Amino acid sequence: MNPIGKTHWVIPGGHIPLCSIGREPNFTSRDVVAILNAGDTDAQVVMTVYYADRDPVEGYSVEIRARRVRKVTVNALIDPVAIPLDVDYALEITSDVPVVVQFLRQDTSLGMNAMTGTIAYGE
Amino acid sequence: MNPIGKTHWVIPGGHIPLCSIGREPNFTSRDVVAILNAGDTDAQVVMTVYYADRDPVEGYSVEIRARRVRKVTVNALIDPVAIPLDVDYALEITSDVPVVVQFLRQDTSLGMNAMTGTIAYGE
Amino acid sequence: MNPIGKTHWVIPGGHIPLCSIGREPNFTSRDVVAILNAGDTDAQVVMTVYYADRDPVEGYSVEIRARRVRKVTVNALIDPVAIPLDVDYALEITSDVPVVVQFLRQDTSLGMNAMTGTIAYGE
Amino acid sequence: MNPIGKTHWVIPGGHIPLCSIGREPNFTSRDVVAILNAGDTDAQVVMTVYYADRDPVEGYSVEIRARRVRKVTVNALIDPVAIPLDVDYALEITSDVPVVVQFLRQDTSLGMNAMTGTIAYGE
Repeated sequence: MNPIGKTHWVIPGGHIPLCSIGREPNFTSRDVVAILNAGDTDAQVVMTVYYADRDPVEGYSVEIRARRVRKVTVNALIDPVAIPLDVDYALEITSDVPVVVQFLRQDTSLGMNAMTGTIAYGE
Repeated sequence: MNPIGKTHWVIPGGHIPLCSIGREPNFTSRDVVAILNAGDTDAQVVMTVYYADRDPVEGYSVEIRARRVRKVTVNALIDPVAIPLDVDYALEITSDVPVVVQFLRQDTSLGMNAMTGTIAYGE
Repeated sequence: MNPIGKTHWVIPGGHIPLCSIGREPNFTSRDVVAILNAGDTDAQVVMTVYYADRDPVEGYSVEIRARRVRKVTVNALIDPVAIPLDVDYALEITSDVPVVVQFLRQDTSLGMNAMTGTIAYGE
Repeated sequence: MNPIGKTHWVIPGGHIPLCSIGREPNFTSRDVVAILNAGDTDAQVVMTVYYADRDPVEGYSVEIRARRVRKVTVNALIDPVAIPLDVDYALEITSDVPVVVQFLRQDTSLGMNAMTGTIAYGE
C-alpha cells in the first residue's frame, strides 16, 4: 500500500518578512515547510524557488527519512543560493515518494506575533 | 507533461479592511492573491469579482509570465473598476494554462498585525 | 457547463469566542462562512450544526442568489435556534447547486485581533 | 449513502508552543484537531505521532460518536505517551468511517494571541 500523500506540491505565496522581534530562534519571522514522510522509504525531495522577476532557482535538496517529519525553514535554504528576504517567491516541491506538505508563516515584524498556514497544493 | 495546477480557482471570502497602521507598503491592510505559473507558457489570467448585492464585474486581466510567480494585491485592481474597501467580495480566477493560487490577507486595522490565508479552491 | 464548486461542505472546527473588543460590528469575535454562487441559478443552502455532546440541529436555511457571494456570520444564525457562544460546533453545508465555501474566524477576545481561515472541505 | 469525509488524514506541521499567557483554559497555547463524524456510526479513530528524530508513536485512540464533533487538544494526548512541548511533530489520523479533520493552532507564547488553521490533508 502506498503511503499517504502526493509527490508534487506547490506553495505560491512565499515571502520571508524582513524584520523580527523576540528571542531567537522561536520568534524569528520565517516561512516554514513541514513535510511528512509516512512511508518506509527515505524521501529525496527537490525544491525549485520561483520569483516574480528573475529565473527560478532549482536544486534545493532535502532528505526526509522514512517515518519522519521534517520542518524546512525557508530562511535557512542557502544551497545553491540563499533566498532573499522581503521578496515574493513560490516553492515547488518534488519528492520521489509520496509526502504531505504544510506551509506555515510566522511574522513578528510589526512587533507582534502573526501566523498563517495552509496545506500546500498537491498533485 | 502539463505544468502543475488548475485553470479555474475561487476565493469566496474576500474583504479589504478599511484601516491600516504601520509603514507603507509592507503593513497596509490588504488581500493578496499569489499565482504561480510553473509552466513554460505565459498565463493569461482573467478575474471576475463577485459581490453580495450587485452584479459581478468581469475582465480584470493579469499576465503571469512563464516560470514566474506574481502577487496580485486586490487593493490595486482598478481596471475596469476599483474594488471598494470594507465590502465583501469573492474572486473567480480563470487561466488559459494551469496555475496555482493562494489567498493571503494581512489586517492591521485594529492596531495589530493579523494574517490569514489558504490555498484557493481549484478545479 | 456546471458552475465551479461542490454541493456538500464541512467545517469541523467551529467555535465562537465569548468575548470581543473594539468597535461593533467590524471587530466582534465571530465565525464567518463565505459562500460563492458563481452560477446562474439561486442556491438553496441548508446547514446542520453538530455539537460535541448533544444532537445536531438541522434546518438553517440560507439563499445565495445567482452570481452573488454571501457571508454568513455564524453568530447571527438564530433560526431554528441560536448557536451558543464558547461551544465547539461543526457546520455541514448542503446546496442544491455547486457553491464554494470558505471559513473565516476573527477572535478579538484576548484584547487583540487574531484571524484564521481555510477553504472548507468539499465533496 | 456514505457520510461526508475520508478515512485517512495528515497534519504535517504540528508544534505545541512552550509558553502561554492568559486565563486557562481558553488562552493556553495549543494545537487542536477538530474531527466531525457526520455519519450514523461511531468512529474509532487511531492517531500516530511522527517526529523529526525519533520513531513514531502509534496508538492514540479516540472515539467520535455518531453525528458528533470532537475537538482533540494535542497537548492533552497522554496515552500511550505525552507529546512533548516545543517539538515538531506530525499527526496521522485513521478512522474506520469517513470523518473530516481540521487543524487549529492558538499561540499565546509571545504575549499575544495568534491563530492559524487549515483543513487537514485527506485521502
